[in-house]
Amino acid sequence: MSLQFKDEITLWLKNLQHSICSQLEQEDGKSYFSTDAWDRSEGGGGVTRIIQDGNVFEKGGVAFSAVHGKTPDFLMNEKEHSVPGDKPNDSTFFATGVSIVIHPANPFVPIIHMNIRYFEMNNGVRWLGGGIDLTPHYINIDDASFFHHSIKKVCDEHHKDYYPKFKKWADDYFFINHRNETRGIGGIFFDRLTAKDDTDFLKLVDFWKSVGETFAPTYLQLVRKNKHTDFTKEHKNWQLLRRGRYVEFNLVYDKGTKFGLETNGRIESILMSLPQFASWQYNYQAKQNSLEEQTLQLLKKDINFLKF
Amino acid sequence: MSLQFKDEITLWLKNLQHSICSQLEQEDGKSYFSTDAWDRSEGGGGVTRIIQDGNVFEKGGVAFSAVHGKTPDFLMNEKEHSVPGDKPNDSTFFATGVSIVIHPANPFVPIIHMNIRYFEMNNGVRWLGGGIDLTPHYINIDDASFFHHSIKKVCDEHHKDYYPKFKKWADDYFFINHRNETRGIGGIFFDRLTAKDDTDFLKLVDFWKSVGETFAPTYLQLVRKNKHTDFTKEHKNWQLLRRGRYVEFNLVYDKGTKFGLETNGRIESILMSLPQFASWQYNYQAKQNSLEEQTLQLLKKDINFLKF
Repeated sequence: MSLQFKDEITLWLKNLQHSICSQLEQEDGKSYFSTDAWDRSEGGGGVTRIIQDGNVFEKGGVAFSAVHGKTPDFLMNEKEHSVPGDKPNDSTFFATGVSIVIHPANPFVPIIHMNIRYFEMNNGVRWLGGGIDLTPHYINIDDASFFHHSIKKVCDEHHKDYYPKFKKWADDYFFINHRNETRGIGGIFFDRLTAKDDTDFLKLVDFWKSVGETFAPTYLQLVRKNKHTDFTKEHKNWQLLRRGRYVEFNLVYDKGTKFGLETNGRIESILMSLPQFASWQYNYQAKQNSLEEQTLQLLKKDINFLKF
Repeated sequence: MSLQFKDEITLWLKNLQHSICSQLEQEDGKSYFSTDAWDRSEGGGGVTRIIQDGNVFEKGGVAFSAVHGKTPDFLMNEKEHSVPGDKPNDSTFFATGVSIVIHPANPFVPIIHMNIRYFEMNNGVRWLGGGIDLTPHYINIDDASFFHHSIKKVCDEHHKDYYPKFKKWADDYFFINHRNETRGIGGIFFDRLTAKDDTDFLKLVDFWKSVGETFAPTYLQLVRKNKHTDFTKEHKNWQLLRRGRYVEFNLVYDKGTKFGLETNGRIESILMSLPQFASWQYNYQAKQNSLEEQTLQLLKKDINFLKF
């Protein structure tokens, strides 16, 4: 099924990118996504779409890529990628995906990240990865509950184990170890999902697609609810500090970013996740019982946001 | 000489910190350094001094630390640290140093970094490390030349090989690989300088001290020359973008930062190097023949700034 499937999944991802950009533009009402198409000298390329200085979105990227070529050595060295009889020199790979990070202007609208990716090798190895997670500058418990319920619904339609398993994975993955805090309220994260036969793999693909499809309706509901909330200079200051943490996570821990930086990837597309403005303040201390302190208390692993 | 030397060097570093902070405060004329003393549960501690929102200095840190305890395993595993017959469990270390990063308000005043550090183990291993490097938002060739001549003078007073050797080391170290550009115009960098006998080691100490002592007069000359230069919103925007690069270097490459993040160091002191405000803009392109483009053309390794 491989060649046909590659084409189908690539087309589906391109359409998803287009659809998400259109919906975000409509919501923004001012700025449009620019289109930056690029080629990879070793094979393939991508289209990075960027929105900046909008009414609602200060900076956001929706990136599509589909790259292929000789399998990098570090991937060949992984046990799960090598099958008996492989000749490393003949090994080729294909990888495609859509990645999104949106930094809104209003501190009461959350930052969001979504990524879905597909990888295959000519030896039959294939897998799916992805996730969606929310980083509110201020955690509103109703919004957090809505977000997790929405994600759980998508998961439950495919397998009852998905939400608890992938929710924990997100808590563990989106963790800023040196700050001992989560990046936000998490969501789901999964990597290297695979199945032996095509029927089961296509079931995984259905789940994976539904993660991509839930991005726009879920996020836009949170955007619409909060985009007109009044904010002060102090709220904006806190937003910039939280974006500083986002930068710390992405540059220090994020595997996709590290992979891109180490493999001479397309740097602007990799770092599109960074905000237009961010701030660091020495030893910031939130005031007692402030909204900021309430948020810090919720930046922990293993909080069940469904119970609220 | 060890115990006596440790005490002497610690006192000398504390005095250096005090002297540098006083001189910077006097230059700033508005803000004063706050004092944040901290203890390390495994032994030792430090004093982090921070200036914020000054007339001249937007955010700066001058940190002193002196820590000791059981040698971490990863240091014991290094060949140069283990001597025959060592019992790892009995190994202890002592490390002290002063680290400085200053982010000025005016885009025409350069960012500066200086660090000197001393390390010893109870098996007799001891070394000195350090460096000073300049990151102008806009590279002024006269200032760059002045800076390198000043540093060369300090080096030449101790050994004619120091400047060329440590200048190259700085070019290689302060390099943002994923951007293919240097962090700034470099300076000098050296690590693990040691000598077999005390006389030679004390000569290294003399050089090392003179690096610390040259910080204030060298930097303040550049500050005084440029702090009243008029700037526009565009200059400020460029400054924020260059600070974004500074964040990238420190979080992705800087060994001291990585070491601190991975060893549960005092996070606020480690990340004091990050600016109050920074910015990222997708695929920024400098205009032809602009000051920004001229600066980008000089962010390369192996430029001889002495020749200007």
